[in-house]
Amino acid sequence: MSRGSGRLAVARFVALSVLLVLGLSARAQADPLPSWNDGAAKKAIVDFVQATTTQGSPGFVPQAERIATFDQDGTLWVEHPMYSQVVYCLDRVPALVKAKPELANVEPFKTVLTGNLEAIAKLPLPELEKILAATLTGMPVEQFNAEVKEWLGKAKDHRWKRPYTELTYQPMQEVLKYLRDNGYKTYVVTGGGQDFVRVYAEQAYGIPPEQVVGTAGGTKYGYGKDGKPFLTKEPKLLLNDNNAGKPEGIYLMIGRRPHAAFGNSTGDRQMLEYTSAGDGARLAMLVLHDDAKREYAYGPAQGLRDTKVGTFTQALFDEAKKKGWIVISMKDDWKRIFAFD
Amino acid sequence: MSRGSGRLAVARFVALSVLLVLGLSARAQADPLPSWNDGAAKKAIVDFVQATTTQGSPGFVPQAERIATFDQDGTLWVEHPMYSQVVYCLDRVPALVKAKPELANVEPFKTVLTGNLEAIAKLPLPELEKILAATLTGMPVEQFNAEVKEWLGKAKDHRWKRPYTELTYQPMQEVLKYLRDNGYKTYVVTGGGQDFVRVYAEQAYGIPPEQVVGTAGGTKYGYGKDGKPFLTKEPKLLLNDNNAGKPEGIYLMIGRRPHAAFGNSTGDRQMLEYTSAGDGARLAMLVLHDDAKREYAYGPAQGLRDTKVGTFTQALFDEAKKKGWIVISMKDDWKRIFAFD
Repeated sequence: MSRGSGRLAVARFVALSVLLVLGLSARAQADPLPSWNDGAAKKAIVDFVQATTTQGSPGFVPQAERIATFDQDGTLWVEHPMYSQVVYCLDRVPALVKAKPELANVEPFKTVLTGNLEAIAKLPLPELEKILAATLTGMPVEQFNAEVKEWLGKAKDHRWKRPYTELTYQPMQEVLKYLRDNGYKTYVVTGGGQDFVRVYAEQAYGIPPEQVVGTAGGTKYGYGKDGKPFLTKEPKLLLNDNNAGKPEGIYLMIGRRPHAAFGNSTGDRQMLEYTSAGDGARLAMLVLHDDAKREYAYGPAQGLRDTKVGTFTQALFDEAKKKGWIVISMKDDWKRIFAFD
Repeated sequence: MSRGSGRLAVARFVALSVLLVLGLSARAQADPLPSWNDGAAKKAIVDFVQATTTQGSPGFVPQAERIATFDQDGTLWVEHPMYSQVVYCLDRVPALVKAKPELANVEPFKTVLTGNLEAIAKLPLPELEKILAATLTGMPVEQFNAEVKEWLGKAKDHRWKRPYTELTYQPMQEVLKYLRDNGYKTYVVTGGGQDFVRVYAEQAYGIPPEQVVGTAGGTKYGYGKDGKPFLTKEPKLLLNDNNAGKPEGIYLMIGRRPHAAFGNSTGDRQMLEYTSAGDGARLAMLVLHDDAKREYAYGPAQGLRDTKVGTFTQALFDEAKKKGWIVISMKDDWKRIFAFD
């Protein structure tokens, strides 16, 4: 590089730097949560971020310790009327039976093949587990990942007629980004399958696979006919990432207590307890599905105390009140639900 | 901020930027691996980094996928004559017996209390496992972390009379830093206890707890008398992070195949196989302990095919040759072993 071109490069860099400084200060003034109405929930998030990222604030948290965990189903995306992963497993049954025709006359596969949703919904849990085991395990990990990816590209939700990955909540996307912009590492901590969610978490939430903690099974290392090693998904459960399994999973996979946690059901209770029991500034929030028009309404606000998905019980509502956890009303706190709204 | 102070701030920023540019270009020219002698090993590392980080290179790897995994004992720090974690467990026995006096006359604790190293070395594996279970499980996670931290602050290696965390290999520290400076996420993937290594990995290697994968047990979520939740370390093994357990653990905890992996024994064989079986540029390296003077000599170079620690068998040596894995000779490739050399 000649001296002249070196000077030119420095000048360019300086010009870019000035633009960057101006851009950053403009951005600092913009509302980081534009899809949120002003209210206690939005204020709690902004106050928490300011308290934990302002040097000298009593709640200041060093960047390395800024961990925020998010339940997925019902917290980051739609879970009603059925978890997307369960839809995936049911959708996989025809291909499974094609590969193993002997299953066609065996329950629960026989019922699933009829497509009779009412009958499928009545399958007892052990039968449902047979479907999960058959569609989520027994194959090389690369094959599973490819199958999920293919399904995500074509499957659509029945109500919005859109891919499931478009049914993420825009206000929560803004929280994820706001926290990351402030030095937080964001994690999905889901009762859903860790391998399943890892396939799309980067695209859907900007969260890399290594920051997805979920219900996880073991894999088995082996060699193919070509001598190449590969991992096979085993039906052995290592972590049931629900209820007490959430803080246990967080300890196993992250090894730090989160400073912020977001959930929407009793399955998230222990994660919120564990998070808020730490020292200093902590944020614990619960999404309440009370918007029958724009999404769904279920949970204590509707007197629906025992729904099939995302049970937000009255007991959880009471614990939240007692412990100062913030309940997010989808109806009142969110200006819009989806990016396409 | 007044206009004048705004201009001053911009001027300051510009000056800092220029210094930064000059500093960065000076750094780019400096040798990133000053403790390495020129040779095949050093060249392999530099070539790999250049191939995977140069836009347009056939081996280019997007930053999100830049994962490098490192075995710990014998690869990042001294493992001879005994793993530090085993020393920790033995050192904990007196405190354990003080808390539970009934153990004083029960084997294997009785033998450990004698301090007779020869007798301790002869304890059969199931007896040793009793000591590990008693000193590594049964307590709240915070208590365990505090105990390890306290021990690390005072325990010293017998040969160098230094804290164990100073016995990390300087050339490997440079590799860690070099990879991180080039956008790699560095992970410890150890047969040692995940919780144990997480206590000091940040200080010793600049690796945060969430990037330590190791042999891991379960925890149990519960509540104290004050109603506060806490996690207790359970004697239930979730992941034996040795041999095939290494790629299995990598898949569980990271969910991506590494592009570079470093080990030193048969316990790392499958990790290196799994890493090097991936597409594109891959780096697989093995540290050979052949420096009896500056550290220790064991393994195939010495005809010691069955040592108690870090077994680098002849079969592994042969597989490395066949598959193009690079063997690092501590004697020939490293200018110095420790930072204090």
